[in-house]
Amino acid sequence: MNRSEATELVREARRRKGSGYTDLAERLGVDRAWLTAALLGQHPLDARQAEQLRELLEFPEEVVPVLAEIPHRGSLESVPPTDPTIYRIYEALQVYGTTIKELINEDFGDGIMSAITFNLDVQRQETEEGPRVRIVLDGKFLPYKW
Amino acid sequence: MNRSEATELVREARRRKGSGYTDLAERLGVDRAWLTAALLGQHPLDARQAEQLRELLEFPEEVVPVLAEIPHRGSLESVPPTDPTIYRIYEALQVYGTTIKELINEDFGDGIMSAITFNLDVQRQETEEGPRVRIVLDGKFLPYKW
Amino acid sequence: MNRSEATELVREARRRKGSGYTDLAERLGVDRAWLTAALLGQHPLDARQAEQLRELLEFPEEVVPVLAEIPHRGSLESVPPTDPTIYRIYEALQVYGTTIKELINEDFGDGIMSAITFNLDVQRQETEEGPRVRIVLDGKFLPYKW
Amino acid sequence: MNRSEATELVREARRRKGSGYTDLAERLGVDRAWLTAALLGQHPLDARQAEQLRELLEFPEEVVPVLAEIPHRGSLESVPPTDPTIYRIYEALQVYGTTIKELINEDFGDGIMSAITFNLDVQRQETEEGPRVRIVLDGKFLPYKW
Amino acid sequence: MNRSEATELVREARRRKGSGYTDLAERLGVDRAWLTAALLGQHPLDARQAEQLRELLEFPEEVVPVLAEIPHRGSLESVPPTDPTIYRIYEALQVYGTTIKELINEDFGDGIMSAITFNLDVQRQETEEGPRVRIVLDGKFLPYKW
Amino acid sequence: MNRSEATELVREARRRKGSGYTDLAERLGVDRAWLTAALLGQHPLDARQAEQLRELLEFPEEVVPVLAEIPHRGSLESVPPTDPTIYRIYEALQVYGTTIKELINEDFGDGIMSAITFNLDVQRQETEEGPRVRIVLDGKFLPYKW
Amino acid sequence: MNRSEATELVREARRRKGSGYTDLAERLGVDRAWLTAALLGQHPLDARQAEQLRELLEFPEEVVPVLAEIPHRGSLESVPPTDPTIYRIYEALQVYGTTIKELINEDFGDGIMSAITFNLDVQRQETEEGPRVRIVLDGKFLPYKW
Amino acid sequence: MNRSEATELVREARRRKGSGYTDLAERLGVDRAWLTAALLGQHPLDARQAEQLRELLEFPEEVVPVLAEIPHRGSLESVPPTDPTIYRIYEALQVYGTTIKELINEDFGDGIMSAITFNLDVQRQETEEGPRVRIVLDGKFLPYKW
Amino acid sequence: MNRSEATELVREARRRKGSGYTDLAERLGVDRAWLTAALLGQHPLDARQAEQLRELLEFPEEVVPVLAEIPHRGSLESVPPTDPTIYRIYEALQVYGTTIKELINEDFGDGIMSAITFNLDVQRQETEEGPRVRIVLDGKFLPYKW
Amino acid sequence: MNRSEATELVREARRRKGSGYTDLAERLGVDRAWLTAALLGQHPLDARQAEQLRELLEFPEEVVPVLAEIPHRGSLESVPPTDPTIYRIYEALQVYGTTIKELINEDFGDGIMSAITFNLDVQRQETEEGPRVRIVLDGKFLPYKW
Repeated sequence: MNRSEATELVREARRRKGSGYTDLAERLGVDRAWLTAALLGQHPLDARQAEQLRELLEFPEEVVPVLAEIPHRGSLESVPPTDPTIYRIYEALQVYGTTIKELINEDFGDGIMSAITFNLDVQRQETEEGPRVRIVLDGKFLPYKW
Repeated sequence: MNRSEATELVREARRRKGSGYTDLAERLGVDRAWLTAALLGQHPLDARQAEQLRELLEFPEEVVPVLAEIPHRGSLESVPPTDPTIYRIYEALQVYGTTIKELINEDFGDGIMSAITFNLDVQRQETEEGPRVRIVLDGKFLPYKW
Repeated sequence: MNRSEATELVREARRRKGSGYTDLAERLGVDRAWLTAALLGQHPLDARQAEQLRELLEFPEEVVPVLAEIPHRGSLESVPPTDPTIYRIYEALQVYGTTIKELINEDFGDGIMSAITFNLDVQRQETEEGPRVRIVLDGKFLPYKW
Repeated sequence: MNRSEATELVREARRRKGSGYTDLAERLGVDRAWLTAALLGQHPLDARQAEQLRELLEFPEEVVPVLAEIPHRGSLESVPPTDPTIYRIYEALQVYGTTIKELINEDFGDGIMSAITFNLDVQRQETEEGPRVRIVLDGKFLPYKW
Repeated sequence: MNRSEATELVREARRRKGSGYTDLAERLGVDRAWLTAALLGQHPLDARQAEQLRELLEFPEEVVPVLAEIPHRGSLESVPPTDPTIYRIYEALQVYGTTIKELINEDFGDGIMSAITFNLDVQRQETEEGPRVRIVLDGKFLPYKW
Repeated sequence: MNRSEATELVREARRRKGSGYTDLAERLGVDRAWLTAALLGQHPLDARQAEQLRELLEFPEEVVPVLAEIPHRGSLESVPPTDPTIYRIYEALQVYGTTIKELINEDFGDGIMSAITFNLDVQRQETEEGPRVRIVLDGKFLPYKW
Repeated sequence: MNRSEATELVREARRRKGSGYTDLAERLGVDRAWLTAALLGQHPLDARQAEQLRELLEFPEEVVPVLAEIPHRGSLESVPPTDPTIYRIYEALQVYGTTIKELINEDFGDGIMSAITFNLDVQRQETEEGPRVRIVLDGKFLPYKW
Repeated sequence: MNRSEATELVREARRRKGSGYTDLAERLGVDRAWLTAALLGQHPLDARQAEQLRELLEFPEEVVPVLAEIPHRGSLESVPPTDPTIYRIYEALQVYGTTIKELINEDFGDGIMSAITFNLDVQRQETEEGPRVRIVLDGKFLPYKW
Repeated sequence: MNRSEATELVREARRRKGSGYTDLAERLGVDRAWLTAALLGQHPLDARQAEQLRELLEFPEEVVPVLAEIPHRGSLESVPPTDPTIYRIYEALQVYGTTIKELINEDFGDGIMSAITFNLDVQRQETEEGPRVRIVLDGKFLPYKW
Repeated sequence: MNRSEATELVREARRRKGSGYTDLAERLGVDRAWLTAALLGQHPLDARQAEQLRELLEFPEEVVPVLAEIPHRGSLESVPPTDPTIYRIYEALQVYGTTIKELINEDFGDGIMSAITFNLDVQRQETEEGPRVRIVLDGKFLPYKW
């Protein structure tokens, strides 16, 4: 069994149980964005988390060690992504990518935002003109250092 | 003169003057991320802003009407981007793209974050482990609506 | 079972029953272009619609919850599309894409036609020189708004 | 001088004169979408139209015969297009391409919508929820015929 | 069963029976190039033809309705094609594509050769220097007509 | 001066003189498809032909030796071609490529149609339903021979 | 059973029997490079050869007619090839491709080396500095001939 | 001046002088395939050779040091190559690439033919059926050795 | 059974046994980077090593001869790689590729680092600022030699 | 003047002066690999270094501020690289990329080698079998840390 087969089995178990990511994350006591990424094959779970999850979702036991392996990361089937919800993030990157670089360079000097010492947050904000999605990418600044 | 020639002339003027984006934005009274994007060819300036900018940066007069045209958007020379600062944003999209979709779907239902009714913020945050880059993508939620 | 397996099962059921999209849409009381897209894996059906459909087409019960999930959108196997019927739409985009942008900009200012608050209509019109296909893309105008 | 140099010269003349496509089309007595496409290098103008246009826009005389040549068509710099206004049309094709084929096949049998005996219309419609963009692709149906 | 599975079953039946395309076409009373394309998944057969074919080739009954569906066209696994026999046609297009356009434009004006009201013929001609392949592409001229 | 600059100069000379390919070919006593391809940079002219052409079209003398060199062949800017007139030939290849291979194999055995001992003809045929374009690709059969 | 399944079965039979290509070619009385290519799916075997091979390698009988069909040629999974042994040939083409063209043109005039009336030889040569690989591509010269 | 500008100047000088590669190679006392590759930008000349060449071809003096630099290798504008003479080599690689690997592995064990300790020869051979092109790729065998 | 199926079976056996590469390499008395590459399908094992491994990991017997075959090399599913750990090596190549070439040329003259007479080492180094990864690519210098 | 024009001017100055990277680095008191990368457009120089360099190489003064800007990184014209010296590094990545990931994961856990807190060394080592190239990639380990 490889990771994407394990991911598929978890997805089916989640559908049967009707469990949301937010709810599962609360029960496991972990960040929900991190858990969602882990369940989509982007992070390893530790053995205890994988076991807890199995109890909640009742997927087959052999899925557990696969979830605990460090995965080969990368979640997109194609780039640019064809799905509109994902494409809009790509569009922001396409339109504002050089802007982000210029502002990081202006505020911090030569370096990058880490994508490893990093977390992601997806938030819902109510405004008078309706709800807004707020996606926060938050990573350590790493200066170029030879 | 096309937009990318105009963009290049503004860039040279900025180098000669040593003006930062944050500083220019304050003088024009506009958001600095928006202005940076505009100067990089991703948004039109209105005629007054373009003229003000010309006074500050002293670029040639024929640049002004070009800056006021609605541009053909898209700032990246290649995808995936080769520059590490920009690549890390791409990596976040590559690793967390499906996560973002799942969480938007869980919190909002079927729909997208608008990239049009949208703003971007790049922030510097000091922490004990050093500065962090915080990139906020903030767009109106648009539900699928036939 | 993933969405494309569900789509295939619906297609086989439709072939067995000989049911047209127009007819199915009428029985479900929904727009036929929307339903066609949904059956091709581009929109979720709500639980009741999915159940009604199962009664009409007699596909296996486990298809129902899959049809009710929000799908990963994107219907084309390759771009440019190889099928001539779909290619002609691509050709219109290829030849007239910049024209459409210029006219939207001239009539509405800087912004886009939403593809989310959007509907599609395919119509048959009889003329003296034979039938014509009329494809109407109709979406809300969204002005760029920081 | 090749066609794209001619296109660029016309664009600069239009900027200098501040002439809209709709206005120019009325003065020439032609459809505005057709004229826009022609000015963007997608259709030949006849000699008289090219000459009339030169009088209105005052571009150099050697542009005239170039505008009268049958161009090498194709307006997009890249596919998928990076500009959001054009991308939304691409997204409609990406999401609804197979839907359009199925409905053409259901209504007309095996065949295509011509992209040659074809016209395009971009319309503005006011609704209570704000203006909508309506793009009409209208082409002769061509049945497969050996 | 999808179309390419049906195509494969027909191919195996043909191998078992040792039936040539020319022979099959004669028995069905149809053009052999058309039939070859149809058997390779590029055209629908009508119900009677599909049934006749089943009697000749003895493939399973459930193949019949699949052959009668309008297929998603496109026969090449990759472009440029790797197979030398198919590549030479591609090479002719690559070397003479612009020539064909110029000559169609010179003889007919602005327009195209239809690939829908179209037929194909592959002929063998004996010459003193050995046999020659003659491929005739024959399609209705369609003038650009707004 | 490289070949594509020479090609461009010939094209401008042809525009100034208003000379058609058919007419030029008759004056030079060569096949018009061959000449068109040669003028578009796909075949070398011999020195005498290049000189004759210079007298007819009055392009600069240094173009002559460039036209006499064996060119680097390939006429398409992109594949699939974006221009509809050229695309239809590509579509015929895309839809009927495997058909052509099967029929060559059935009529001739294992081998190819040469694209080198080869000629091309573009013909106009009047029919009751309007003019048809007939493109004849005619090449020597070459059997695989180790 | 398609050709690549047949190829795989032959490969497994060869592994079980431990038979080298050179040895098999001697027993069948054919050129070893030709046979290797045929076993890798690039040439058809005649019925007698396929049957002889079956006796030597003891693969299933239904493989025989598949080996006798004219295959769809093309042996590389990706280009540039990732395997270093194959890549070095690609590198020779990448570095010396234009050199080969210039020298063929200088020695023979305008034309090509046939890849159809063609054979390949791979030889081992012992030298003082160790063994050398000698790959000989040998094809008939075909002059361009309209 | 970069290498490709230098290459272009040498090519123009060669055209003016009408000097063949074989002839130039003899005068310089070097292998003609090596020299051809060098003149096409794939190998550095030593200072003396570059100077000798300048005397023979009379190109500008500043070309000399550029020819003596180690170039960035790679001679093909696109892969697959569009020019038929170069494509046939590519086709041989495409059809026989895996064959060459198998035979090198069978004769030498696990390793490669060096493309660095390597030479190329293009030969003309007269046969009863006309001239044949013989391309010899000859490189040292390098066994995998950790 | 092909090599990637064998690779998968070894991976599952390793997961069941919990054996690290370093440990396995010690037991077999081979370099751990070489063994890791071999287990990932990039090098053949000799028969004895494959057998020893089978005893340690208890995978099925028919895996053994497959591990002993010379593989088709190439370990990346896509380039650029999507996995961040692998991407950073790619980024080093992307940013420093020309630097490495210039320094090899400056230190050694015209030539390459062999990737065949080559070994790789991955080391962990403790520093005051935390552990560092040290990847050493070490290959024989091969001068260009005609 | 953009960065690649500045890079080209530095390269020409270096050719005129005949200055090696190692020598220049010593005079500036910086690491030679870092300086080489900087001169090839991959790192900014500080103002003093850029000025010192100008004195050594005598390039035009307006180059100085361009060298001091943070560049858009990425040194390869195409991937895979066509130049054999650079390709061998790519080949090492292609063959050993997954190996490196597995060993980093085994030695350090889940994380990456930083390409930012990173340095590169190219070394020459004499051995009995001739010189070897040793390329050391040395970066801080960054564990995944949410």
